[in-house]
Amino acid sequence: MSEPSERDQRHRQRMQRKKAVVDEKIAAAQDERGLLLVLSGNGKGKSSSAFGMAARALGHDMQVGIVQFIKGASSTGEEAFFRRFPEQVRYHVMGAGFTWETQDRQDDIAKAQAAWAVAVELMRDPAVALVILDELNIALKYQYLELDKVLADIAGRPPHQHVVVTGRGAPAAMLEVADTVTEMGMVKHAFKAGIKAQKGVEF
Amino acid sequence: MSEPSERDQRHRQRMQRKKAVVDEKIAAAQDERGLLLVLSGNGKGKSSSAFGMAARALGHDMQVGIVQFIKGASSTGEEAFFRRFPEQVRYHVMGAGFTWETQDRQDDIAKAQAAWAVAVELMRDPAVALVILDELNIALKYQYLELDKVLADIAGRPPHQHVVVTGRGAPAAMLEVADTVTEMGMVKHAFKAGIKAQKGVEF
Repeated sequence: MSEPSERDQRHRQRMQRKKAVVDEKIAAAQDERGLLLVLSGNGKGKSSSAFGMAARALGHDMQVGIVQFIKGASSTGEEAFFRRFPEQVRYHVMGAGFTWETQDRQDDIAKAQAAWAVAVELMRDPAVALVILDELNIALKYQYLELDKVLADIAGRPPHQHVVVTGRGAPAAMLEVADTVTEMGMVKHAFKAGIKAQKGVEF
Repeated sequence: MSEPSERDQRHRQRMQRKKAVVDEKIAAAQDERGLLLVLSGNGKGKSSSAFGMAARALGHDMQVGIVQFIKGASSTGEEAFFRRFPEQVRYHVMGAGFTWETQDRQDDIAKAQAAWAVAVELMRDPAVALVILDELNIALKYQYLELDKVLADIAGRPPHQHVVVTGRGAPAAMLEVADTVTEMGMVKHAFKAGIKAQKGVEF
């Protein structure tokens, strides 16, 4: 093999410095506990990110619980897929469609509260490693659920259970208690350019 | 049932107006074609969002191709999981670890180019509905791959194939041609607060 070029040597030196920094950070990060992750913002990728974590958890043979708030009028790819693993995934869809489809506030509230009861059940089961509360922030925004109760129920989960909350407009009190918060910013969205929601991408 | 309250009536009216707006937008968005989605930024959720789309696509019985650039030294939940569906998912991991682990630029380049050859193969197969190019932006940032060739290969894919590119620091030319771009902003990250990368969440 020929002598490494100057560029390759510089690369190696830079990467050695970077490795030292990264290794130090990894050594410093030794806490292990269940995280509360919040995925908010207007951009695409909040729910799909939560479902990607579900796939990861299943790859580690962990148990997963999924509750979908708001969505649910029509069937989705994620629902069809994760329902194939009933031994590992408990899946509940609120089953009311978007709020502007139902237009019935009292009915929405009843369904959101029934969905929350399922969420609480999952958050009381130490065997469930990851709980996804998809579009919970929308249910909170419309005041279908009481924020204080929601936060108390999340705080009362088993110490090693991860909870992922999605939906735009996460309340400040939830961001406050979260461990990881991503704000998904919409730089561009195909839908705005006149492209239909696409199977396998949006649903 | 009792007379709806004033609040419930206002809710109904607001939702009726919202429905009209949403319906109009849906009617306007009638194009169907393969999208190029770019998930960039420093926040958590880029790769997991791509894997969530893979789960959605599998729920619709679509074929999926996944190529992971940069990552690959240790096994991940996503790899363990998606390799369970060899009939539907073709999975390739570059297998070199992060760049600061290898510190060998020429070896990284050779592996990145071999991974790109797999990506091109997937993007020449009309049976593959969704191709995930995970952390491609990092390989581009280090100039392990030539941007012009990468963009030309992506542009040459079958018209109905979706491509998802992840990684911080997406090049401007890629954002330009993308259909949907999400910038994932890090508001908080558990790792920064001293919490280890967690199984089922980060890997």
